[in-house]
Amino acid sequence: MKIGILGATGEVGRQFQICLNERVSGIEELRLFASPRSEGQVMEFQGKQCVVQTVKEGCFDGLDYVLGSVSNGLSKQYRPMIEKSGAVYIDNSSAFRLDPDVPLVVPEINGEDALKHKGVIANPNCSTIITYMAVAAIHQKLSPIKKVIASTYQAVSGAGAGGPIELHDQVLAIEKGEAVEPKVFSAQIAYNCIPLIGSINDNLYSTEEMKLQNEGRKIMHAPELLATCTCVRVPVYRSHSISAVIITEEPVSIEAAEEAIASFPGTVLLKDKLPMPLDSSDQDLVYVGRIRRDLTDPNGLVVWCCGDQIRKGAAANAVQILEYLEAHK
Amino acid sequence: MKIGILGATGEVGRQFQICLNERVSGIEELRLFASPRSEGQVMEFQGKQCVVQTVKEGCFDGLDYVLGSVSNGLSKQYRPMIEKSGAVYIDNSSAFRLDPDVPLVVPEINGEDALKHKGVIANPNCSTIITYMAVAAIHQKLSPIKKVIASTYQAVSGAGAGGPIELHDQVLAIEKGEAVEPKVFSAQIAYNCIPLIGSINDNLYSTEEMKLQNEGRKIMHAPELLATCTCVRVPVYRSHSISAVIITEEPVSIEAAEEAIASFPGTVLLKDKLPMPLDSSDQDLVYVGRIRRDLTDPNGLVVWCCGDQIRKGAAANAVQILEYLEAHK
Repeated sequence: MKIGILGATGEVGRQFQICLNERVSGIEELRLFASPRSEGQVMEFQGKQCVVQTVKEGCFDGLDYVLGSVSNGLSKQYRPMIEKSGAVYIDNSSAFRLDPDVPLVVPEINGEDALKHKGVIANPNCSTIITYMAVAAIHQKLSPIKKVIASTYQAVSGAGAGGPIELHDQVLAIEKGEAVEPKVFSAQIAYNCIPLIGSINDNLYSTEEMKLQNEGRKIMHAPELLATCTCVRVPVYRSHSISAVIITEEPVSIEAAEEAIASFPGTVLLKDKLPMPLDSSDQDLVYVGRIRRDLTDPNGLVVWCCGDQIRKGAAANAVQILEYLEAHK
Repeated sequence: MKIGILGATGEVGRQFQICLNERVSGIEELRLFASPRSEGQVMEFQGKQCVVQTVKEGCFDGLDYVLGSVSNGLSKQYRPMIEKSGAVYIDNSSAFRLDPDVPLVVPEINGEDALKHKGVIANPNCSTIITYMAVAAIHQKLSPIKKVIASTYQAVSGAGAGGPIELHDQVLAIEKGEAVEPKVFSAQIAYNCIPLIGSINDNLYSTEEMKLQNEGRKIMHAPELLATCTCVRVPVYRSHSISAVIITEEPVSIEAAEEAIASFPGTVLLKDKLPMPLDSSDQDLVYVGRIRRDLTDPNGLVVWCCGDQIRKGAAANAVQILEYLEAHK
């Protein structure tokens, strides 16, 4: 198998390499692409030296898959070249997520959609993946989910490699009594919560918040799903957490929900422990717990979940899509 | 006016003194009470030295008000002595909050309830005060609130003086590569979120979470109000934040909600800025923003609010109750 990584030196790009190494065997060639700034950088993969190259005409030729984590603009720019090469493009940007010709896939939820691809498969938003991984079992096995009301607790690494550096620098600056100058985030993130991620749409929701409804409908095969979300950045290095209320068509008991979640692939139900971002980091499972009845709606359930947004929320999910395609060849 | 403070050396006890100094004039005597551990400690108030004493028979005699921030057990133990002294007891514990003979008061929302007191007035839970301060204007001026769905982002100082020390110690330990040993919190709080505050009830909600419904009904004069809450501790030193959806009897426009909130005493509507815990600390106003339509319910509005839980969520609110009683003598 020959694989290319687009955006290889970024936060998700490096995680693609870690996940491929851990999860996929038989990789014959790994070709790394990044911006001219990183050209010539040498990265090691499975004992081999890979030299980072820039995107040039024909650079994707001969590849089976390209895993991408670049901006929407670059993703749109490179897509025709990847398609021409015949490689399947698994794209972590949001450029094509809502394109009806592009499957939007979380393998445990709608893996079969990946098989209908026409060259491009989109990887969903990180919080969206983690939220629906936690509750898809209820939707698929017990009763369809009609509504989701969610508040997120999103880690700084969701903002790219600069996020954790900024949090750490600010903590040190505060320790020394020095002034804090936000660059990556719109305000100090150390010891603070910033209730806005992305830019604000006409309906006053942020781009990040709308993904829970727009992408959720497509992943869950629920075109009428309603989802309201408040996305908040918190001073956590890694793993996003989501506090969610889900309203199902018919009432679902806590016991049935727990059983469904516990037996769903990729999720771990915690009963005597609390799902916490610190524990769910650096691995691919979504931790779910604190399941209880919504006191405001007889058809509602309240859920708390955490997952590593760079792994299951991005790189691992993309690699799982590749694995799914390989397994269903 | 002669005032006693019960639990004078604690986090809220010290804030009582700051708020009294800032907000109340004509204090003739301040008598400070704490545990034997703090006996003899000298604290300065308005240029006078106050020696901390323990509670003894007759110690409240001659006082007009006692502001209390002690455990429920001690509050129950001391109440008869305070009542006997004739002082009005404004209690920050949760011992009497749901007692039908004890008003539960947020002065801006239901100040008039304080006037019906029989010697004891209860100060509500911190997150409860901040949440309802943010939305009471909608309930009272526009349309009654039927349901609240909330997720909290609660500061470590809500766990008492040990909370901020633990967060700071953990940050320093991590910096040095040392092991973190949680004491105040059930897990590491530095760079983490802990989705449980208080103990868990039979319905699987925590004691802290149930306060939003139980205390909310009483404060808002809405005995049928339904509220579902998830309380989460975050690595923020001070000020609680709440992400809330409110469902009103009739639809309320964003514009009407914003106008009502902006003109409500004690709240600040932020339009071009984000309410953040760092900004709402060390003052008495509740910051409200990001108001938008709930996408799952035509009668729903989504709100984000922050407030200093030691001030408006505890000490300042108690002092405001005292001010209200004085103003309505």
